[in-house]
Amino acid sequence: MLDYPALAALAAVIREGSFERGAQALGVTPSAVSQRVRGLEEKLGTVLVQRGQPCVPTELGRTLCSHFDQVRLLEADLDPALKPRLAGNETTPTIRLAVNADSLATWFPDAVTRFVRATGLLLDLTREDEGHTAERLRMGEVLGAVTTDPEPLPGCRAVALGALRYAACASREFVERHFPDGVDPASLTKAPCLRFDHKDRLQARWVRETFDCELQAPTLWVPSTHAFQDFALAGLAWGMQPLLLARDHLAAGRLVELVPGSLLNVRLYWNVVRLHASSLRVLTDAIQAAAREALGRGEKQ
Amino acid sequence: MLDYPALAALAAVIREGSFERGAQALGVTPSAVSQRVRGLEEKLGTVLVQRGQPCVPTELGRTLCSHFDQVRLLEADLDPALKPRLAGNETTPTIRLAVNADSLATWFPDAVTRFVRATGLLLDLTREDEGHTAERLRMGEVLGAVTTDPEPLPGCRAVALGALRYAACASREFVERHFPDGVDPASLTKAPCLRFDHKDRLQARWVRETFDCELQAPTLWVPSTHAFQDFALAGLAWGMQPLLLARDHLAAGRLVELVPGSLLNVRLYWNVVRLHASSLRVLTDAIQAAAREALGRGEKQ
Repeated sequence: MLDYPALAALAAVIREGSFERGAQALGVTPSAVSQRVRGLEEKLGTVLVQRGQPCVPTELGRTLCSHFDQVRLLEADLDPALKPRLAGNETTPTIRLAVNADSLATWFPDAVTRFVRATGLLLDLTREDEGHTAERLRMGEVLGAVTTDPEPLPGCRAVALGALRYAACASREFVERHFPDGVDPASLTKAPCLRFDHKDRLQARWVRETFDCELQAPTLWVPSTHAFQDFALAGLAWGMQPLLLARDHLAAGRLVELVPGSLLNVRLYWNVVRLHASSLRVLTDAIQAAAREALGRGEKQ
Repeated sequence: MLDYPALAALAAVIREGSFERGAQALGVTPSAVSQRVRGLEEKLGTVLVQRGQPCVPTELGRTLCSHFDQVRLLEADLDPALKPRLAGNETTPTIRLAVNADSLATWFPDAVTRFVRATGLLLDLTREDEGHTAERLRMGEVLGAVTTDPEPLPGCRAVALGALRYAACASREFVERHFPDGVDPASLTKAPCLRFDHKDRLQARWVRETFDCELQAPTLWVPSTHAFQDFALAGLAWGMQPLLLARDHLAAGRLVELVPGSLLNVRLYWNVVRLHASSLRVLTDAIQAAAREALGRGEKQ
């Protein structure tokens, strides 16, 4: 049997990024945390945490943390009468998820609200590009992820959520200045475009699908959904804006589409570990309900 | 003399995260990029990029990229008559900066707009906790950073920008449910609180300054400024909200302060490499002007 107090210490160190803060979160001394983690490492004959700033788990360390999180969720399903006897200083079980920035800025808060209200449990949300969230799940860093990959990962199941729809937008003044003769491959190489980070391929994908060419343009990089839209509104660059956030600006003429009606659909899937814990069922229901409302509606318009 | 086409290849690989995409950004073949980088590594007798997904620079690789960016900025100051003769396929010089999420969501876009309009140059913004942006500058990953550290880093200068002001906020219903007898250290250990990521110590700092105790509470982790506010509005948890974003919600009663009038000031500084390039002077002016308007005003209210 694994040493669960030691696993709790390991999980706290990794979540907080240091032994001191992990100890503080557990309400014990740093030397107690350090002893527990070292004891576990000695027993297993391998390193579980690379000491540094921040402390990061090794592959086995990450697997153990994921296992620990799953055990906590199963414990939460036990007879409520047992709970007061389990432990005094227990922290609330927390489910780690990886979600893309545009979902976090649009429909995902509604899913979280439904889940937290129904269960009283909490979530630890990690932001990651939708094309890379599956990797976080595969690595055991999270128990569920909003992905673009319809295939469930091993040990997981995947459900379709609908599509986030994007429009290639800029201010009217920007379009008149950079595309006086219309948008074409030549003008696109000169007009500045927005990019969230180096994983963001949406602008390139839209250009490929619309003009059958590769995008190569001056780029304004901005890893903030707020600022990404502010920069389009200010006429600094064009970029792919989620319709859920851009619709009002488009209707009011503050933003215009580069090619009217040429939308990009990003289909999203909920990929979650197969674990028969009621909390994960409630979470999946909440995510499906919120997605149905926001993304289903987006699909039809 | 360094081999600058090779440095351009190195910078593109690191910016894009792969040799293929770096090649695409430069409009050359992947094998050309690979040869240039390998040639540079052989000449210097050391590895500059760790091949992987993504490709990441070694310490020397990072230093060389920072040097390359600075040379590009100095080139941009040369006699405009020279420029057409410099190179055909030149990309726009881009300045890399590290900025905290709450600045990106509030006053920083105005600074960027002023700068881009004045110069036509572009920025590559990286999001980082305000307590850790200075580290990115020290590592040579960026040429400037919005920091909380008033001391300039070696080779840099620092200017004060004013303070982002935060209020500890929640919905009225949340406050009534979790703090029926007022906010105190005991009730704070039970009420769920928000945290942006593990670097976010604002909630803990406010509790320490207001109640002289360490915060240890159930936590809802959410690395999105949008969702961070949505979750407070939905009554899921309390958290430190920037006044610039929360003011209207406070005025309308959708959010209330946990302890009215007990604000937290986060003083911000602009820390930038000492390089006599006109673009950096214009950037510093733009940042100071935008900060004066948004943070100066915040300070007085």
